[in-house]
Formats: sequence, C-alpha cells, structure tokens
Amino acid sequence: LNRARYLSEDWVYLLLLGSIMSLLALFMDFITENTNKFHQWAYDQADQIEVGIWRILATYGVWTMFFVVMIFLAALLTRLIAPQAIGSGIPEIKTIFRGVILKEYLTMRTMLAKFVGLTLTIGCGLPLGKEGPLVHMSSVVASQLSRLVHSFQGIYENESRSSEMLAAGCAVGVACTFSAPIGGVLFSIEVTSVFFAVRNYWRGFFAAGCAATISRVVTTLLKDPELDFNAQFQTRFPTGKAFTLQEFPIFAMMGFVLGIVGAAFIVVHRNIVLFLRRNDIAKMLFQRYWMIYPILISFLFGTITYPEALGQFMAGRKKFTSTVPDLFNNCIWSNTTYGETCSETVTNSWTGLSHENSIFISLVVFQIVFFFLSIICSTLPIPAGMFISAFVLGAAFGRTIGEIVAICLDGEIESGGKMQSLYPGVYAVIGAAALAGAITHTVSVCVIVFEVTGQIITLLPIMISVIIAVTVCSYLQPSIYDSVIRIKH
Amino acid sequence: LNRARYLSEDWVYLLLLGSIMSLLALFMDFITENTNKFHQWAYDQADQIEVGIWRILATYGVWTMFFVVMIFLAALLTRLIAPQAIGSGIPEIKTIFRGVILKEYLTMRTMLAKFVGLTLTIGCGLPLGKEGPLVHMSSVVASQLSRLVHSFQGIYENESRSSEMLAAGCAVGVACTFSAPIGGVLFSIEVTSVFFAVRNYWRGFFAAGCAATISRVVTTLLKDPELDFNAQFQTRFPTGKAFTLQEFPIFAMMGFVLGIVGAAFIVVHRNIVLFLRRNDIAKMLFQRYWMIYPILISFLFGTITYPEALGQFMAGRKKFTSTVPDLFNNCIWSNTTYGETCSETVTNSWTGLSHENSIFISLVVFQIVFFFLSIICSTLPIPAGMFISAFVLGAAFGRTIGEIVAICLDGEIESGGKMQSLYPGVYAVIGAAALAGAITHTVSVCVIVFEVTGQIITLLPIMISVIIAVTVCSYLQPSIYDSVIRIKH
Repeated sequence: LNRARYLSEDWVYLLLLGSIMSLLALFMDFITENTNKFHQWAYDQADQIEVGIWRILATYGVWTMFFVVMIFLAALLTRLIAPQAIGSGIPEIKTIFRGVILKEYLTMRTMLAKFVGLTLTIGCGLPLGKEGPLVHMSSVVASQLSRLVHSFQGIYENESRSSEMLAAGCAVGVACTFSAPIGGVLFSIEVTSVFFAVRNYWRGFFAAGCAATISRVVTTLLKDPELDFNAQFQTRFPTGKAFTLQEFPIFAMMGFVLGIVGAAFIVVHRNIVLFLRRNDIAKMLFQRYWMIYPILISFLFGTITYPEALGQFMAGRKKFTSTVPDLFNNCIWSNTTYGETCSETVTNSWTGLSHENSIFISLVVFQIVFFFLSIICSTLPIPAGMFISAFVLGAAFGRTIGEIVAICLDGEIESGGKMQSLYPGVYAVIGAAALAGAITHTVSVCVIVFEVTGQIITLLPIMISVIIAVTVCSYLQPSIYDSVIRIKH
Repeated sequence: LNRARYLSEDWVYLLLLGSIMSLLALFMDFITENTNKFHQWAYDQADQIEVGIWRILATYGVWTMFFVVMIFLAALLTRLIAPQAIGSGIPEIKTIFRGVILKEYLTMRTMLAKFVGLTLTIGCGLPLGKEGPLVHMSSVVASQLSRLVHSFQGIYENESRSSEMLAAGCAVGVACTFSAPIGGVLFSIEVTSVFFAVRNYWRGFFAAGCAATISRVVTTLLKDPELDFNAQFQTRFPTGKAFTLQEFPIFAMMGFVLGIVGAAFIVVHRNIVLFLRRNDIAKMLFQRYWMIYPILISFLFGTITYPEALGQFMAGRKKFTSTVPDLFNNCIWSNTTYGETCSETVTNSWTGLSHENSIFISLVVFQIVFFFLSIICSTLPIPAGMFISAFVLGAAFGRTIGEIVAICLDGEIESGGKMQSLYPGVYAVIGAAALAGAITHTVSVCVIVFEVTGQIITLLPIMISVIIAVTVCSYLQPSIYDSVIRIKH
C-alpha cells in the first residue's frame, strides 16, 4: 500500500510539474508575443510621420528606447528580486547536480525574478533564449513541489529522490522551450548528469509529455481553434528528395567548421566576461553604477539593429528568432534557374530597404554582428539563455553555404541519374543543429531539431555534422556551461 | 600524446564496429530478400499447375516445406556451431552488463551460429525479428575488436572500457536492425543499463551514425543508384492534419489496452516456455529428439499460414513484416464515404482470395493467430528476436481501432470547425509503438518509431500511448527480457 501511495504521489507530482511549467511557458509566450507586436506597431506608427528627419528620429527613438526601457526594467527587477536569476541557470543546476548546495538558487524568489526578467528580455527581442532560464525555473518548481510533498510525508525525504525530481524538472524546462519533449529529456540528461540512473528515465518522459500535451490542449482551447499539429519551426522538405549523398562531404565540412566556430564563441564569451570582471573601469561600472551597463548595451543594440541604418543589412525589422522560418525555407534565395524561387515576403527582409543588397551581404553581416551581439547581450545582468543564439547563427551559416552551393550548381543537383532541386533550407537546419550542439557539447540536439522542425528525414546529415561539430568543439574548449562554471568558481 | 593515441584508437575502433555490423546486416538483408523472393517464385510456379488437386498439393508442399527445410537447417546449424546463439541475445547481454561473466556468449563461434541461423530464420519469413540477435552479434564484434586492440596495448585493458565498448556494440546492433541510429542508442541504454555514464553517450552515437551512413552509401553504390532517403516503413501523413485533439482519448485508451496485451504476451510466453521445460513429453522431445520440435512447429506454421486455406484470413501471401506498409498506409481500408480510399494492391491481401472477407475478420484473425504463433516460434531453438512481433501485432491492433473509428465517423473528423480526413494509419503507428514499448519496457521506442517511419509529426500521440502502455505493463509484468532472464536462472 505504501509503495502504491508513493508511486501515485510520483505521478501526481510529475503531472503537476509538467502542468505548471507548461502554463508558465504559455503565459510567457503570450506576453512576449504581444510586447513584440506592440513594438512593431509603435514603430509602424512612427514610420508614418511625413517629414523625413522627424520620421527618422521618431522611428529611431521608438526602436531604440524600447530596448533600453525593457532591458533597464529587466535588470532592475532581477537585481531587486533575486540576483541569482541572472544568466542561464544551467551552469548552476549542473553544479547542484554535482552535489554542491546552492540553496538560494532554488527559491520562489529566484523563480519570480527569472520569470519577470526573462519575459522582459524575450519580450523586447534581444538575441537571447529562454532555454536555460526555463530549465532553471522548472528546477525551482520541481524542488519546491518536492518540499511541499516532503512536509507532509517526512519519511520520503531523501537525497536521491529530490535529485530525481530535479532531473525531471530540467527535462520539463527544455521540453517547454521548444515543445520538444523527447529531445528535452535527452538534452537535460546530457547537460546535467555524469551518471544517469536509467530507472528515472520515464519520469522525465512523463513530465515532459504532460507539459507538451497540456500546452497543446490549452493553445487549442484558448487561442487557435483550428489546431494543426505543426512544430515550432515546421519545415516542409520533400520526403526522400531533400538532399543527396553527394552533399554529405559538405555537411561533414560544415560540422567541422561549426565545431571551430562554436569553440570561438566560447572563447570570445569567456574573454569578454573576464575582461568585464578584471578591467578597472568595467569593475567600477558594475559595482557602483551597475545600471549604466544594461542601458548602454541595449542602446547600442538598438542602434546597430535600427532597420533604416545598419539594420537593413541584417534583416533588422525581424526579431532575431523570427528569422528562422526564412532560413529554413524550402526556396532558394538567390535567383537560380532551377530550384524553388522565394515569395516576396521571404526575400524582402534580406535584401535591404529597396532590394539593392545581395543576400550574401545580409547573411554575412547578420552572422558577424549577432555573433558578437549575442555574446555581449548574454553578459547583461538579466536572465538569458544562449542555446537559441547558436541555433540561429548556425542556421544563418548553413543558409549561406546552401545558397553558395545553389548558385554553383544553378539550383539543381544530380541524384541517381535524375536532377532534383537543391534545398539550402536543409543546410540551414544542419547548421543550426551543429552549432547548437557544438557550444553545448550535446548530441541530443539532433532530437531537439527533429522535434522543432517536425521532420526527421534529415536524420543522417544532421547526425553526421552534429557528431563532428561536438567532437571538434570538445577537443578545443569546454562546453559553454562548463566555461561559465569555471569563470564563476 | 598517449591520450591522443588512446582517443584516435577509439574512433577507429567505433568506425570499424559500425562498418562491420552494417555490412553484415546488409549482407543478411540481401540473402533474406532473395530467399523470400525464391519462395514466392516457387509458389507461383506451383500455382500454375492446371489440375486442381495437384495444384493445391504442389502449392501446399512448396509453401510448407520451405519453412520446414529452412527452420530445420537453422536449428541444426545453430546447435552444431554454438547453442549459445539460440534466442534473442538481449537477456544474455543484459546479464553480462550486470557483471556476470558469460564468456562463451561472446565468441566468434556464437557469432557465426547467430548469423547463419538468423539468416535462415528471417529468410523464410517466420514472425521473428532480428533485433535481439543483431544486438548480440554486434556485442560479439565489439568484444572481439576490444580483445584485438588489447592484445597490442596491454595498458589500456580495463573492465570499464570493455563495458563501454559493449554498450556501443548494442547501440550499433539496434541501429542496424531498423536503420534507427538515435533510437538504437537510446533503446540499448534503456534495455541494458542500470546506471549509464553520460560521458560514453557519444560512442554509441558515433558508431551507430557510422553504421547508418555506411549502410546508406553501400546501398546507393551497389543496389539502388536512384537513392531516395526514405525510412524503412516510410509513412506519408500530411503535416499538421494527420490527427486531432479529439482522438487523444482513444490514443490513451489504446496505450492502456496494449499495456495489458503486452503483459499478456509476456505471461503467455513464460508459461509456454515453462510448460515445454517441465512437461515430461516435452522434456523428452527436447533432449533426445530435439529435431522433432522445430520440424513440427515449422510444419504447423506453414499449414496455418497456407494462403489458400486459413492464410486467406490473415494476409497469408504476405510475409509477416511486409504487412507493415499496408497497416501504416494513409488510406482507409473499409469503404467510407470520405477519407482516402485504398488502391487494389493494399486491400487485395486483406480481403481473401475473391475479396469476400471483411477486413475486420482478417485483422482479428491475424492478431490472434500471430499472437500465439510468434510466441511459439520464439521458443524454437534458433536465433530470434521478439521486438518486431510486438511491433506488427500492435500495428494490426491500431489499424483495427482506426478502421472502427473511421467507419463510425464515416472517414472524416472535425478539427477547429473544418472536416478533415481520418488516418487509421496513424492509429497503426501508435499501436506498433505502444505494444513494442510495453513488452520491452522502453519509452525510447518512440524515437525508433520516428526513425522507422521517417515522420515525427505523430510525436504527442505516440508519446502518450507509449508512456501509458509502458507504465501499465511494468506494473503487471517484468519486461520480456527480464522474464527470459528469470526463466533461465
């Protein structure tokens, strides 16, 4: 009887964990979607001013001030509520898993700070992700729920059990970020554990499954009655005809290069963090006038991405993550004789205000600028993940390679005697997986990518380039999470 | 330097492991395909005899004798070369992983017996799989390769290392069976390990990735120049429109029922095995006249499946596993007003010789007969896996439920105000995953199913019913592998 009670409690616990997190994630999505819309709307309003100079001043003001205000608020609230909420959270969870007690990281206060800060950060569209923070939040929920159960039932309290629950919490966190329940379980195991008790495998699965299901049901009921089960970044490559064996060496090379890029990302990130920590001016800035840094950086970010100046070279009107559907698109951006041509809506953002820029300029500028911007933004004192930065940068890299190949081959490739269309979108998906895998040192990114794109036909290319990228990057550098742990301790 | 050498050896080792196994699996596929073709050809020849009674005698003889001869040979050779090759192999590997030394199970002799026996078994189309045996073979290759490396480099010899390599071996085995590299890694972890060292995760991935890639390259070069990257049982459900939220309760119920069916499968299997072991007549049969049992059973199998008698009620002309594409098909077998109708080729095998049987009779007879036949066949003294039996039975169950729903709703279902076609194939995929998950107690069957069908859009339904099926079955019974271990020891 006791065992049955113990087990049924487990189920309820995991169901609760999944439900709470999926509702929180949905609520956050709802807010961030609307703040982003508001930003677009305000910008469009300012854009309608007729006198040239005023129009530019107004749009620039609206564009930039939005970032400054949101980030200022995020930094302020995070600092006031709980400074433990700053950053990704995965390094801390990893530390907790290794047996170090970081109690203040698992309080409701931290959770609140993380939620508020993250919502503001994502809501303004900085190139930062919610993955790490959601893992952190989910772990807090798991640990608080644990305590709740324990306070009734003292006998069940034990170390290993609460660590099991924490593991399920991590899985739910990743699952909620991408609606990728299976990839979430695997990713959280790879990132946090050294030894993994297979017997607890189902916990993560069940909790993540609950989260995904509830999220789907709520979306259907509240928002989108015409439900179609599309993935977050649904791709539509044709089954069996999306790539050929001849492209495999290119995919492998991409994995190799992105492994090195991933290592560079980690090195640059570490050096910037260490510089900010050791440099005298930076030190003063952080300790006495800590408000200046977020304001400065968000102002800089707004200025650089302002769509009428530099922003036109990097799809500036689009928020960082909303470039992904473009990058994963079936069509070929460059005008090739064969292959699918793009609709206006896709190419518009990437060819500048009056379509005069080459897409390659946009793609390269986009990659260089956001490589540094996403690293710099991640040093802000706000909750912020870095997985999605790598994902988008990798996708842009892949799209670039794919477009080059498409131009070289004029949009077609031979496969078994027949010609078939080339898909630069496949390259983008592979690039996204490879770079995200490289900086996190996880091969389970493959599964996340399948779930995020809703297609598994790119199985082999993704696996090959992820394995190569992860291997190359692990030889060169520790993972981004281990790097942060080393900086901190 | 030493470390670099150590690591580079690892890579070569895993590459070799993947290559050898994928080539072996391809070779086996090549032979079994041709023996199956030969059987069909011989049957067709016999079918052309004009005198009625002779035709029936000849077809019956060809149909049945083929099974008898092949199984007799398989049993004879397995016994002569190495009786350790009998059965699945996964229970033994699991035992080895728990630290028990079963040296004779990892010799080249066992490997040879397994290969020959399995080729003959699969070549005649008995309802048995190659998953377990391939895992076993792959473990032998891993362990032999280990020994080879160790004989040069005594310093590297250690217990944990050879167990790491064995784990990679298991992963490759599953990966080769279904060309499911990721699912293979996860399945082998879940089945064999209790605690899993995450640091070794990449080994399995790399080896399985190599196996899948080499298998693909060789197929392209030797066999199919017009390569399309289709999965083994590629499904073609429309993205986002294959199922609706209203069907989720049915999917959950299916998971529940299949969990119980899985437990029943395990109980029946155990009781038959124990009966054969304890009954006096059976004992005598096995010890003194061990040849009688395989001949008897294969004769019985041939008689029951003979296409012109009972076989017409269970798609008798088709080999057991080649029914899967029918079961996963997009169309609706029963004639509904809406929804996709089937091509003749699909319905032909399921409606009897002159299309007079209801498809439900065929489906139900198929399930009942093969439930028992696949259990009985798995008690034969030959190498044989049981995963695919559960997979196909589950698919047939799912198709049955799907067809019932289709008839009730006349082939259409409402989703967000619009009507859309119903897909009984989705039910079949879910059923296959749930029953295979139930008997093996593994949730990673989900990933295998995504890879095997080449589609991941059925993520949520599959996850839900697999989790339910696994949970229900684990409450009722140990997994089929643990059950075999308990019987043996």
